[in-house]
Amino acid sequence: MAKKSAQVESVRDALRVDPDGFDIARLDPAGRPVGPRSKDAAAADLAKVGAELDALQEALYAEGTGGGRRRVLLVLQGMDTSGKGGVIRHVAGLVNPQGLHIASFKKPTRAELRHDFLWRIRRQVPAPGMIGVFDRSHYEDVLVARVDGLVPAAEWRRRYRLINDFEAELVDAGVALVKCYLHISPDKQRERLVERLENPAKRWKYNPHDVDVRAEFSRYQAAYQDALAKCSTPAAPWYAIPADRKWYRNWAVARVLLEALREVAPVFPEPSYDPVVELARLQETDPLR
Amino acid sequence: MAKKSAQVESVRDALRVDPDGFDIARLDPAGRPVGPRSKDAAAADLAKVGAELDALQEALYAEGTGGGRRRVLLVLQGMDTSGKGGVIRHVAGLVNPQGLHIASFKKPTRAELRHDFLWRIRRQVPAPGMIGVFDRSHYEDVLVARVDGLVPAAEWRRRYRLINDFEAELVDAGVALVKCYLHISPDKQRERLVERLENPAKRWKYNPHDVDVRAEFSRYQAAYQDALAKCSTPAAPWYAIPADRKWYRNWAVARVLLEALREVAPVFPEPSYDPVVELARLQETDPLR
Repeated sequence: MAKKSAQVESVRDALRVDPDGFDIARLDPAGRPVGPRSKDAAAADLAKVGAELDALQEALYAEGTGGGRRRVLLVLQGMDTSGKGGVIRHVAGLVNPQGLHIASFKKPTRAELRHDFLWRIRRQVPAPGMIGVFDRSHYEDVLVARVDGLVPAAEWRRRYRLINDFEAELVDAGVALVKCYLHISPDKQRERLVERLENPAKRWKYNPHDVDVRAEFSRYQAAYQDALAKCSTPAAPWYAIPADRKWYRNWAVARVLLEALREVAPVFPEPSYDPVVELARLQETDPLR
Repeated sequence: MAKKSAQVESVRDALRVDPDGFDIARLDPAGRPVGPRSKDAAAADLAKVGAELDALQEALYAEGTGGGRRRVLLVLQGMDTSGKGGVIRHVAGLVNPQGLHIASFKKPTRAELRHDFLWRIRRQVPAPGMIGVFDRSHYEDVLVARVDGLVPAAEWRRRYRLINDFEAELVDAGVALVKCYLHISPDKQRERLVERLENPAKRWKYNPHDVDVRAEFSRYQAAYQDALAKCSTPAAPWYAIPADRKWYRNWAVARVLLEALREVAPVFPEPSYDPVVELARLQETDPLR
């Protein structure tokens, strides 16, 4: 039983993927390696996290209006039903939507396939001051592309380096990358797919192709193992989020995002005008007189 | 004192701009023509509104994935500090950000000026299933364009009809338009501009040009008078939102938006697959076996 509170220990340190010893088979999808043990405790902490995230996002946005280049990019990956949409709703939903840029990467279109795999990704990199959220990402190009053999093995193998180079470039451009892998068990996935099929209000979320992908669960795990181990760099590490418990998943992503924003430590820009002069102008030009 | 509760009477009916008798000078920016009388009561009601908005937005989004064409477009107009950003934060922020498309229309760029005034607007019309939010809009082209004389009078005068035609076209395409004019008094505006200048965390929101615009307050009111009276059509009416009280403004826009979504009454699409067949497939292809 941990004695330190969630506020004291670093959630990022506890969940960061260490490329050396990483073994996806040893991750517990129902684990709670750090932080609250109960749903109620997580909800209470999430309310605090939300208030701080909201304040930091406003400062980041303000910094961007003042010429700052910094921004945040939350990358979400995980098997179907692992909760990418839930995180957008419950974590991204904690901040002002005006400061969010959400991009969803589905099967590439014909136009997208005419370009290199990073082309469509680059177009969605958040502008300075924004928090971007990627619902799937360039990692699909070493996941589904590998499992379904969409490209030769030599091609997806070279993409790990291309991804690391691309992400290093983003970091240099002022992007704080927060990459979260939502780890769900096959059992929990079945439970959630059944729920989608049985609840008429959830059937729209289900696609028959989901079963084909599920049949390849272990091959996807092998692909995630390599993607996470090869692309968890010091500048852009991966975080492995246990996702069988929705409340834990949301809490963990929110805390990881908060720690990243605290590290960015955005600052309100100095005004480009003289506030004293402006206060005087404001009194002089009173439209009521 | 109204005896009916906010839930019973229609907030839209109470706030809708009647093009015949409309007189902007008679609108009370601090009025509460319908609904809660206190901040606490409004907060309690807003929580209920938020839950229902969230559910309706999910159904609208689902309907869109099933081929539905319907969508909602919240148009926000108002003088500086009237609270367009506040509404986005506190009202649009009540729903899943993945279903929002927020567009902000600032001074047109050179590229935009090479096209007709509706060109940049059309590009931001929300996709089916989405809730779009316009922070300023095509109405700027009969407001600032008129007050600052950016185009000849003959040009901005013909735009009322072009706007009505454009909006009728949107309605035909399945767009539910919710146009809210946030009405603020010059006194309250001064108070908020002073606050922006005095609070270092708010100075980034202030622009010296705001004072120039404020000096034209009464000419803007005349421009709003015409824009609201000439473009409040049965298919796309304007709603005049008293905006001196932030809590009332947020509550009123949220209720107007909710009533519009209730009228849309989005429905979850019928699945394009057979749920029984899929449940069987799911059991057969168990990756755990």
